[in-house]
Amino acid sequence: MHKSGLVGFIIDCQTDDLDQAARFWAGALRLPISEAGLSPNPKYRKLAPGPGGMNIEVQKVDHPSRVHLDIESTDIEAEAKRLESLGARRVSRVEGWIVMEAPTGHRFCVVPARAPS
Amino acid sequence: MHKSGLVGFIIDCQTDDLDQAARFWAGALRLPISEAGLSPNPKYRKLAPGPGGMNIEVQKVDHPSRVHLDIESTDIEAEAKRLESLGARRVSRVEGWIVMEAPTGHRFCVVPARAPS
Repeated sequence: MHKSGLVGFIIDCQTDDLDQAARFWAGALRLPISEAGLSPNPKYRKLAPGPGGMNIEVQKVDHPSRVHLDIESTDIEAEAKRLESLGARRVSRVEGWIVMEAPTGHRFCVVPARAPS
Repeated sequence: MHKSGLVGFIIDCQTDDLDQAARFWAGALRLPISEAGLSPNPKYRKLAPGPGGMNIEVQKVDHPSRVHLDIESTDIEAEAKRLESLGARRVSRVEGWIVMEAPTGHRFCVVPARAPS
């Protein structure tokens, strides 16, 4: 049986200045931009872990700004099927994760479970 | 000096059936609707606490669905001023909290700090 659960959220920002956006959210949430925030992927800035170690990132996007939730799973295909049975639909597969849409209209992602720390 | 920090998020749902919306998110996140979810305010359903005790609620709204973050503070006025200095603006005061808009366009709320448990 696969496992899954809320692992964090991504603050999607329609912006030309990702660093400025990340600085605002780091200040607002009092979660400094982590060194890992200087990731090789120039679309993301990672903040310090949130409550319970939650993963919080600021992403540069072309669509209107929003917050999207990330669900992690030890088996993202099985998890996507479980979520479909609850009423969600698949939107696309991007790199290593699956983009889904809730029956309430929210987009969210199913991502591979992090390695235990 | 006041304190503040991320306390949780609200899943705002443009829906005629709040219970159905809450059931989806409770199932998706594996966070059951809490007994406190049957709150006197018919617009909200509270889920079991998220990672780190985060407060997660499903709200019925009239605007398009979105997720909004809640920042708690021991002094919401001082916190709103701090956030304004970072570039946010006040939108409105609703009941006991302050609705703000980030420079990235996201709406979020500043809410009174929870009593220590």
